[in-house]
Amino acid sequence: MEKCKIIFKPSNKTIEVRKGADLLASAVAAGVYINSSCGGEGVCGRCKVVIKKGKFQTEPTGRITPEEKKKNFCLACLTTVEGNLEVYIPPQSRLELDKTKKEQARVYRLKGLYSESAEVDKGKPIIDEGIFTHSPVSTKVYAELPRPTLNDSVSDYERLIREIKSKYKISIMQAGLRNIRRLGALLRHSDWKVTVTLGKRNETTEIVIIEPGNTSKQNYGVAFDIGTTTVSGQLVDLNTKKVLGTKGTHNKQVMFGDDVITRIMFATEESGLERLHHAVIDNMNSIIKELTEEHGVALNNVTGVMCAGNTTMMHLLLRVDPTYIRKEPYVSTANFVPVIRAAESGIKIHPRGLLACIPGVSTYVGGDIVAGVIACGIDNEEALTLLLDIGTNGEIAFGNKEWMACCSASAGPAFEGSGVSCGMRAIKGAIERVEIDAKLNAKVKTIANSKPMGICGSGYIDLLAQMLKKDIMKRDGRLNADAKTKKIRKKDGELEYVVVPKNKACCGYDIVIKESDIENIKRSKGAIFSAAAILVKKFNLTFDQIDKIYIAGGFGTYLDIENAVTIGLLPDVDRKKFKFVGNSSLIGSREILLSYDTMKKAEDTARKMTYVELSKDPAYMDEYISSLFFPHTNLEKFPSVK
Amino acid sequence: MEKCKIIFKPSNKTIEVRKGADLLASAVAAGVYINSSCGGEGVCGRCKVVIKKGKFQTEPTGRITPEEKKKNFCLACLTTVEGNLEVYIPPQSRLELDKTKKEQARVYRLKGLYSESAEVDKGKPIIDEGIFTHSPVSTKVYAELPRPTLNDSVSDYERLIREIKSKYKISIMQAGLRNIRRLGALLRHSDWKVTVTLGKRNETTEIVIIEPGNTSKQNYGVAFDIGTTTVSGQLVDLNTKKVLGTKGTHNKQVMFGDDVITRIMFATEESGLERLHHAVIDNMNSIIKELTEEHGVALNNVTGVMCAGNTTMMHLLLRVDPTYIRKEPYVSTANFVPVIRAAESGIKIHPRGLLACIPGVSTYVGGDIVAGVIACGIDNEEALTLLLDIGTNGEIAFGNKEWMACCSASAGPAFEGSGVSCGMRAIKGAIERVEIDAKLNAKVKTIANSKPMGICGSGYIDLLAQMLKKDIMKRDGRLNADAKTKKIRKKDGELEYVVVPKNKACCGYDIVIKESDIENIKRSKGAIFSAAAILVKKFNLTFDQIDKIYIAGGFGTYLDIENAVTIGLLPDVDRKKFKFVGNSSLIGSREILLSYDTMKKAEDTARKMTYVELSKDPAYMDEYISSLFFPHTNLEKFPSVK
Repeated sequence: MEKCKIIFKPSNKTIEVRKGADLLASAVAAGVYINSSCGGEGVCGRCKVVIKKGKFQTEPTGRITPEEKKKNFCLACLTTVEGNLEVYIPPQSRLELDKTKKEQARVYRLKGLYSESAEVDKGKPIIDEGIFTHSPVSTKVYAELPRPTLNDSVSDYERLIREIKSKYKISIMQAGLRNIRRLGALLRHSDWKVTVTLGKRNETTEIVIIEPGNTSKQNYGVAFDIGTTTVSGQLVDLNTKKVLGTKGTHNKQVMFGDDVITRIMFATEESGLERLHHAVIDNMNSIIKELTEEHGVALNNVTGVMCAGNTTMMHLLLRVDPTYIRKEPYVSTANFVPVIRAAESGIKIHPRGLLACIPGVSTYVGGDIVAGVIACGIDNEEALTLLLDIGTNGEIAFGNKEWMACCSASAGPAFEGSGVSCGMRAIKGAIERVEIDAKLNAKVKTIANSKPMGICGSGYIDLLAQMLKKDIMKRDGRLNADAKTKKIRKKDGELEYVVVPKNKACCGYDIVIKESDIENIKRSKGAIFSAAAILVKKFNLTFDQIDKIYIAGGFGTYLDIENAVTIGLLPDVDRKKFKFVGNSSLIGSREILLSYDTMKKAEDTARKMTYVELSKDPAYMDEYISSLFFPHTNLEKFPSVK
Repeated sequence: MEKCKIIFKPSNKTIEVRKGADLLASAVAAGVYINSSCGGEGVCGRCKVVIKKGKFQTEPTGRITPEEKKKNFCLACLTTVEGNLEVYIPPQSRLELDKTKKEQARVYRLKGLYSESAEVDKGKPIIDEGIFTHSPVSTKVYAELPRPTLNDSVSDYERLIREIKSKYKISIMQAGLRNIRRLGALLRHSDWKVTVTLGKRNETTEIVIIEPGNTSKQNYGVAFDIGTTTVSGQLVDLNTKKVLGTKGTHNKQVMFGDDVITRIMFATEESGLERLHHAVIDNMNSIIKELTEEHGVALNNVTGVMCAGNTTMMHLLLRVDPTYIRKEPYVSTANFVPVIRAAESGIKIHPRGLLACIPGVSTYVGGDIVAGVIACGIDNEEALTLLLDIGTNGEIAFGNKEWMACCSASAGPAFEGSGVSCGMRAIKGAIERVEIDAKLNAKVKTIANSKPMGICGSGYIDLLAQMLKKDIMKRDGRLNADAKTKKIRKKDGELEYVVVPKNKACCGYDIVIKESDIENIKRSKGAIFSAAAILVKKFNLTFDQIDKIYIAGGFGTYLDIENAVTIGLLPDVDRKKFKFVGNSSLIGSREILLSYDTMKKAEDTARKMTYVELSKDPAYMDEYISSLFFPHTNLEKFPSVK
């Protein structure tokens, strides 16, 4: 069997593979992560690489222009290795952790319409302080035990429990055999002064870790939001509640498919489940590693991890087969998952540290929306509130402290920058604001004012709203070929509008929006708007009767509400009712990490929420079709836009 | 490094070791278990073997007679391997599982004075039926789940819990990740019909095992009594409560020392704790294997193990360092141990099956006496009861349902046939009854009427009582050199009485009792009697005021109460008050295995019992010294003997 050596640039990572190996798979095996949304089918065109040296074979594809072909561009998924190779991964094909500095991130947020979300990094929950009892999922307590005497000769283990129970209100406690085995020597070598990490596992409090001396000040946790497209993590000091840092990254599972259904199908293939599982665990471990290294926190002092995510993401995280989620009657294996040891799922924190998942409502409404409801405090308020969490799997909650309902809408990843030709996540170089001038040229603003690389969700919202206003785009989403601008052109039989020409972009090609992109975004906004409309209607209410509308999701740091109403993503009501809350799932996840009482609230919320299945409702399809216009077929619903 | 091959006869087990290896260690490594009580110090003389062929070196020892030496007898612990060897292990040196058939065992018991203990094998507790709620530590329930529909799409895991909770009164339930991972496929492949093994772990009910179909009828457990000298196990059908079989064996830890203190010292040596742990786990696994094979039970259908034993035995079983037990202030690492997975300690039943230890009272009063109290129903009765558990570690409980106290006495293993020159356990060939005729010759009866091999505890009690009555032995335990019999002789400067001459025995030497043996037994009986006397006195009571006296312990199947009173082991009170209950620790262990409510009773009992430390009491030493006579210094205490 002939071996070929591949060197990947610019990381200089290398690997030896057998001749004939798939280049995309080889890159993954080498730890080089490349964009890919179609599962290696040669469809999405996102895994473009440049072969600098060496022999290879590649299948023909429309995704590579003749110009690119000359420069040895090819799609990694369609390429087989025929000899030693040197492969360059261009920036737009790289899957990397966000390197955005925290300070920068805050600045971006403040530029947004709704500055509240800027508070996130300060570690302040967006609801009132003091509501959550401060007792994290894993809590360190310091104990100085009385030395045993002939008159007080209770065993080491009972002595430890007695001491803790004398100070804290804990009824049932237990430790694992491993801790008991070490206990005798540990207590004596530490002069009976130890730090105990207590963890809540159901009604039992577990003695998770026992350490010599007083290390109670060093106790950290990581809260995660595991989205279909984006994985975000936040390192928190469990004593002070202070957020030390936040990082986001593309979910590496995107390599195996853009949406949950594609991934569930991939999971049924040989070792598919394993690969999906390892992809997200890799994401999480990278985030934990970078955050702890940046903030000088030892991994052994990270004792707890909290995860919010949709039901499929939670299955993949725990390596539970998600097959049955997509087969009628669409039943998941578990929505309420017991607290486990993080190591059981491959997460690298303290080897005995704990991992908890926020319970979900149903197969299609996961713990992420529950976390969002908690973050927004909907379960505490009289005010009738609508929460729109605009992700690949759009989830909507509606209600107040008395009652709550929810539904899900398959929005697709367009607003997260996937599935659209020049889309990208809201990171450095992403176009997040757009204005179109009188000459019909786009003026763009990018995150960190970098050279434009692509367009993120908030950029697309601005862009469509502006194109509609300037009559570049018609209400049905088709481009106006008669508009007086050369920026509208036909390419490969399809009309497109050039937002940034190649020479002003850093991606190596014109940044454009095609009619097919508009179609994708239209479907996304239509799915979300119509789901919200039907959910509200179910309770014989109208949007006007709602007190608050929270918008959450992967828009990064900025969302122009006015433009979102203009394109019909959001209902046309008093703008004061809107609040852009950023990643409410991550905020909720952090609050639940910080307080076991809040976990109990989350469980109550998950049990209380009524799931409304839209696919069964004929009214939904009517409303959806009406929503496939900008802003809507029925302009009466959007008087201010009209 | 030169290799030598050793073949052990009669088992024909072989092993290759390096030249210069220790023969005793080589035998253990080959799986050939040899008696040894001194930890390989060349002191006890129990590891006699015969080298049939090959080169070896052995140290001189008084334990080998010149006659034996001619026949190539040597002590395995003092012998090093110098070439290929053929080694014969004589019967008295072999450590083997009892092969006694159950039917035979029952016959022996019925011959005893108190036949109640014969009920043990029938699976009837010695206290009233119906007191224990029938809910074993691991309980199998069969469930047919309603198939999910679009209107009932609760997740698999919650569906399973819902079904079980609808039928059984269980509040908190959880399953491990491993079970959740398998659940989706398992439910669908088994047509939603599964058998769930539920286990109690603290207040949480765990879903331990999920199996397809209805296997609820196949659920077995093994109850153990882990004694310092003897390990006994009982296979129980957890549904019918029927005892399928009982087996006992020498605790293999005896190789490393006779008593708990010697073993604790051995545990501090390199890999000492490991070896002690593996020895008892080996014992238990052998018993489980033999019992399940004999009764056609699959190991995978054994779901629970219950263990009673003294505190040191429980530490060694769980591989918890027992070092601190023998260091002032004598504190154990844990008396209340949480339920663990049996596999965690190396016990081979269903890989997810559970192992529970009965809680102990203190460092020197273990779960075995708690089990005994439960077995005798002392915690349920008004009657003032004394329980004497006569083992190597003698433990005594005293009280009734209102209050309870306990103490321990370091009795030594004499009544279990160890530490006495011709002692053996109550198995086939052991002398269990003795009468001495007018000519001062002993007439003996052995278990299974085999050729005599040694003397067990009940045999020694008979023998001493008879020797006292016939004036062969004086009240201080010295032999009467003037007695008109040649059976009393001097050997190696010590008087001894020949019980069975070599030609009538199967062990190859005269079965004798030496003055040093009498001294050992005297100390054992003195320790137990004086501990009981002081415990009773502490509460300003006398033996006459006690309603019931239960005697438990390793006497095998028979105990002559009259003779036990004669030598001063038991107090001289109305004989109707006595009840010989056999292995009460094993019986209690079984009852607790069969009922979680009984485990709760055991926990209450362990917490309730007041531990009386005798070593601190000056009255104890006085009473002990007075007890070093037959029956006692003060004959007024034994009017019927007087």
